[in-house]
Amino acid sequence: MQSVGIFDSGVGGLTVLRALRALLPEESTVYLGDTARVPYGTRSPETVVRYALNNAAFLTRAASLKLLVVACNTASAVALPALKARLEVPVVGVIEPGAAAAASASRSGRVAVIGTRGTIRSGAYQRALAACNPDIRVEARACPLLVPLAEEGWLEGELTRQVVSRYIGDLPGLGVDTLVLGCTHYPILRPDIASVVGPNVTLVDSAEATAREVARRLSSMGARAPSGQTPHHRMFVTDVPEAFHALARRFLGGDPPEPERVDL
Amino acid sequence: MQSVGIFDSGVGGLTVLRALRALLPEESTVYLGDTARVPYGTRSPETVVRYALNNAAFLTRAASLKLLVVACNTASAVALPALKARLEVPVVGVIEPGAAAAASASRSGRVAVIGTRGTIRSGAYQRALAACNPDIRVEARACPLLVPLAEEGWLEGELTRQVVSRYIGDLPGLGVDTLVLGCTHYPILRPDIASVVGPNVTLVDSAEATAREVARRLSSMGARAPSGQTPHHRMFVTDVPEAFHALARRFLGGDPPEPERVDL
Repeated sequence: MQSVGIFDSGVGGLTVLRALRALLPEESTVYLGDTARVPYGTRSPETVVRYALNNAAFLTRAASLKLLVVACNTASAVALPALKARLEVPVVGVIEPGAAAAASASRSGRVAVIGTRGTIRSGAYQRALAACNPDIRVEARACPLLVPLAEEGWLEGELTRQVVSRYIGDLPGLGVDTLVLGCTHYPILRPDIASVVGPNVTLVDSAEATAREVARRLSSMGARAPSGQTPHHRMFVTDVPEAFHALARRFLGGDPPEPERVDL
Repeated sequence: MQSVGIFDSGVGGLTVLRALRALLPEESTVYLGDTARVPYGTRSPETVVRYALNNAAFLTRAASLKLLVVACNTASAVALPALKARLEVPVVGVIEPGAAAAASASRSGRVAVIGTRGTIRSGAYQRALAACNPDIRVEARACPLLVPLAEEGWLEGELTRQVVSRYIGDLPGLGVDTLVLGCTHYPILRPDIASVVGPNVTLVDSAEATAREVARRLSSMGARAPSGQTPHHRMFVTDVPEAFHALARRFLGGDPPEPERVDL
């Protein structure tokens, strides 16, 4: 039985795994969270490429892959060409699906993207949106507090909304009608983000857009798991920090499988 | 002319440099911020020891040192023995000075420590306080949102106070009368922290306590710079992230010297 491989620098990619399992419940998956080397956003592109190739090589040994998902914005921004050159299976990142979904959702032609400093600075979403439609005007904002807020799990109450509002409260007034959640942590802050930008701004979740792209690719390859097949899920991490299980539960929803620890 | 060497995993140690330069204005300093490998808090102890030895070796090559300050809580918690074994000059960490200052400040015998997850989990402050006075009861709290808040520079207004209050608003009610700011980022949040815990809780700034310990050590060695000497300051970093200069200004106060980039 072949699996869809997924890696991320940590637990954030579990939002992609969750979207994938919701959309493609028959597919088997193998997830690697490189928790020992997180975060990738502060590393040089060369280092991120090296880590990404390590991770892909591990997943290729751990399972028979039919497709690899790079569920990490930083690695998607810098390591996709190296991964595509090295692997024999298709490689899907999170940035192009998110950008394409945003480009088709926007009617005003003003799209905003939020992400970590590293993702925004890389310009990857800005380039991907321009490739979809060169007339789109992009408002890109780094929101460094949102990852630790999501990891703290302070999702209820005023505090998170205040932080979000400080970062992006002005977007509706700028004519933005589409907002890309350009970080795998952000989907768990979605209710707060939605309440700040209001009903006239469409939120594009890269995780969901990526899951749809995976479904499309598997279908076009004729590689979808047969309907009714019982999937098999494995999860690996390179380190198990104290807070891992609580985080994994929050990001994956429900009960995550016990992760196996590996050294890369 | 000999210098006091200082290293940190990033910019936080600039609060120690600032305290040192305020207390010992004649001393020359050489600072290394290992911004390419920040944060240390998520790495294994073996890795942190290796990085710390790298950093010390670099500073030893860059200047003639009379003393080395480890201005990083994680490295102070795990790498002091290795550094002391390897170096010929005295090595001062930030944890023991902070713990000693807190132990002598407390009258109630209830002391709280706040820090990153890594520092709190290491138990280093808890052990250092117990070594000063085994009767002290320690309330240790990890406050992961405070570092990104300090780095965002959102120091005014209600938001930071709300976050601080959520972490430690209950301390006065627990009989705590002394609070150790156990992370080099926290001194720049000091006004907000003070307003949350109120006037009956003494704040102990590890940066200031460490500067006093350095002064004491230099005096006992007869190694203080002569009064009136014009000091020389150098600053090195292993990477220059986009936000570096704004951060360095905020942490050091005034205008930081232009850092030189080095590869370690």
